[in-house]
Amino acid sequence: MKKYASEGEDMYLNRDVITLAQAKERLAAVAPKKITQEKQVEETLGYILAQDIIAPFPQPAFRRSGYDGYGILAEDDRDYPITLTLAAEVPAGSELKKKLQPKETIRIMTGAKVPDEVAKVIMLENTHMLADGKVVIKAGSRNDNITPIGEEFEKGAVLLTKGTLINAGAISLMSAFGFATCLVYKRPKVAILATGTELLQPKDAPVAGKIYNSNGPLLEALVKENGGKVVYCGQIADDIKSLEEKLDDLAKKADLILTTGGVSVGDFDFLAVAAKESGQLLFNKLAMRPGSPTTAFVYEKTLVMALSGNPGACFTGFYLLFESLLQNMQGNSTEIKITKMKLAHDYQKPNSFDRYLRGTWEETATGKVVSLVGSDQSSALGNLHLTTCFFKIPHDTVVTAGTEVEVWCLPYK
Amino acid sequence: MKKYASEGEDMYLNRDVITLAQAKERLAAVAPKKITQEKQVEETLGYILAQDIIAPFPQPAFRRSGYDGYGILAEDDRDYPITLTLAAEVPAGSELKKKLQPKETIRIMTGAKVPDEVAKVIMLENTHMLADGKVVIKAGSRNDNITPIGEEFEKGAVLLTKGTLINAGAISLMSAFGFATCLVYKRPKVAILATGTELLQPKDAPVAGKIYNSNGPLLEALVKENGGKVVYCGQIADDIKSLEEKLDDLAKKADLILTTGGVSVGDFDFLAVAAKESGQLLFNKLAMRPGSPTTAFVYEKTLVMALSGNPGACFTGFYLLFESLLQNMQGNSTEIKITKMKLAHDYQKPNSFDRYLRGTWEETATGKVVSLVGSDQSSALGNLHLTTCFFKIPHDTVVTAGTEVEVWCLPYK
Repeated sequence: MKKYASEGEDMYLNRDVITLAQAKERLAAVAPKKITQEKQVEETLGYILAQDIIAPFPQPAFRRSGYDGYGILAEDDRDYPITLTLAAEVPAGSELKKKLQPKETIRIMTGAKVPDEVAKVIMLENTHMLADGKVVIKAGSRNDNITPIGEEFEKGAVLLTKGTLINAGAISLMSAFGFATCLVYKRPKVAILATGTELLQPKDAPVAGKIYNSNGPLLEALVKENGGKVVYCGQIADDIKSLEEKLDDLAKKADLILTTGGVSVGDFDFLAVAAKESGQLLFNKLAMRPGSPTTAFVYEKTLVMALSGNPGACFTGFYLLFESLLQNMQGNSTEIKITKMKLAHDYQKPNSFDRYLRGTWEETATGKVVSLVGSDQSSALGNLHLTTCFFKIPHDTVVTAGTEVEVWCLPYK
Repeated sequence: MKKYASEGEDMYLNRDVITLAQAKERLAAVAPKKITQEKQVEETLGYILAQDIIAPFPQPAFRRSGYDGYGILAEDDRDYPITLTLAAEVPAGSELKKKLQPKETIRIMTGAKVPDEVAKVIMLENTHMLADGKVVIKAGSRNDNITPIGEEFEKGAVLLTKGTLINAGAISLMSAFGFATCLVYKRPKVAILATGTELLQPKDAPVAGKIYNSNGPLLEALVKENGGKVVYCGQIADDIKSLEEKLDDLAKKADLILTTGGVSVGDFDFLAVAAKESGQLLFNKLAMRPGSPTTAFVYEKTLVMALSGNPGACFTGFYLLFESLLQNMQGNSTEIKITKMKLAHDYQKPNSFDRYLRGTWEETATGKVVSLVGSDQSSALGNLHLTTCFFKIPHDTVVTAGTEVEVWCLPYK
């Protein structure tokens, strides 16, 4: 039998504690670079533009009729009412093939191309068609009802800049200028691995001592919510050989590997072992709770972020360490907004590490107030769906109601 | 040749003007009912739960060790330091098969099932293993380090209620209780049809008098952003026969049909004609700008929402009339939040209809302030991607800077 205790102690004591900020720096230093790809414009919703979009032609590209009505020459624009001969009709999408002559008019529709020689479009309401096909223009018009070429955008105008998050309006703008594709940043490919002999899959019958894998599905959903592409989501038992084989495989498939479980000081915490053996350990002890044994390392050139197996710690670690990596690879920055709010209640459990507690905030008459949501235990999983922010209790501190605390607001859905 | 003017006038004058609120009531009255479906839990991100989720067992389901350490009996919990015989190891996911005896201890891991007879788990740091395999417990522990059965949830507890928007945390919670599937509301199937002989497709070369279809891609992205499933997105020329054939086809495929263009008073505005001929016209004139000719009707039992072809009016009409329909069919309510803010500037163009102008708002030292973003023309398409809200200028009113106006805040991305 192995000498458990001494090994455990040894591994624990050898860990260098670093701060969250230091951990983020080390991750950023080895994070994969963002990659661009050409994509069909209609499939770019939610992507970040990796190029400026420049107008290839003015908008409108032609003199455009603002109304349905009749087009007249400048020389006929007097002595109302006037009677003109209908020369042609110009529906939207068509073009007058001949030149309009004096005393002639064209029936023109909203959005249609106004011939160069036409000075005004008289709205339908101010006209009347006679039985013989002639048209009476009852009164003139102050406005010409014609939108000039380039009124909205000149040729060469910057329509959208590199770095823009593509929303529906941006898609319509690119489409209006005939762009079929554009350059965007690729979604990072993420592999998710839950480790633990205790893990059951959804359809398994309950087994004494075992639990259902909830962190795998949690991380899969968090990666998707934050723009990553999940290329693998699975689970393995606590076994160093299986783990290394799995990491070998995932390092080939994914840009980033995200694991949960196996990072603590226990004898079956093989992620901790793999991290040490990788020779490229970034950190394995953070001065924060929950998730102090959160570990990161590079395995076969692929960054592995190894989160705690405790649901609360796993959730917190994802947002505090992984979310910005994912966003940066997509050309985005973190969607977490750090601000300050008053705490609604006391929190009097000092810890030698900073705590990031799951909370929720609300707008009150005297400003925004944050409070704990559900349990503060890192093993709790009943409050993750209610968490809209984390709030920080600095190390070695007790806090009373009304104290201002740092709040990390999540892009909560 | 047809008598355009008189037809146009006739159609225009026959329209009954109703308010936006009345239009929403008429739409709600004929909107399809929401439909439920059983879905794999890991595929439910962003759906709305159509059932309560009840805990089928307590959580934790067994007495759970909070740490890696040694389990001891109550009768041995005294006279420290004590030396005990190692009887077995209990990793997470396993169960002790025999009964622990006095003077014996078990090595137990975080998350493992604690045998009934074990009173406390002593943390690893307070223990030491001897060369002969015996274990020295150096000091006792105030806490038992055991999480009792049902501490977080009792069997039968309501985990999530019907109507909950499923986020990552909700997925993890259902997974933790072994749910493989759950009941959610289906995403509405939406068909999108852009009409207009003037419309080019993205890869077409420019043609004088024609424009690229931008409203089709706009609506496709807006429907996706708001949870709908786009089952068709295409375009047709202005032709009543083609239109009716297309509507026949789409009415079979989709829960809702969304069109753009062809609703005005022109001779080629065949959506207006189809709406009248359907015999089930809901409205074809709203007391609002932009988009006053916005039309809705029921065609072969399917609701058709016919928006203006002007990009600004199309965008505005989607949010003011269609977004809540889409959300309601998914078991959700509108994501538009109506509030009041001060207007940053004058707006002095009175209109006999209420105006809903595209704007953006910001938080200032003296509260939230809204202002126009880009052009107020309904034909403009350069500001849709920047619009974060609409603000309302009541009919027959001019507004000066600092006036409080009604603001419709969009779920802007």
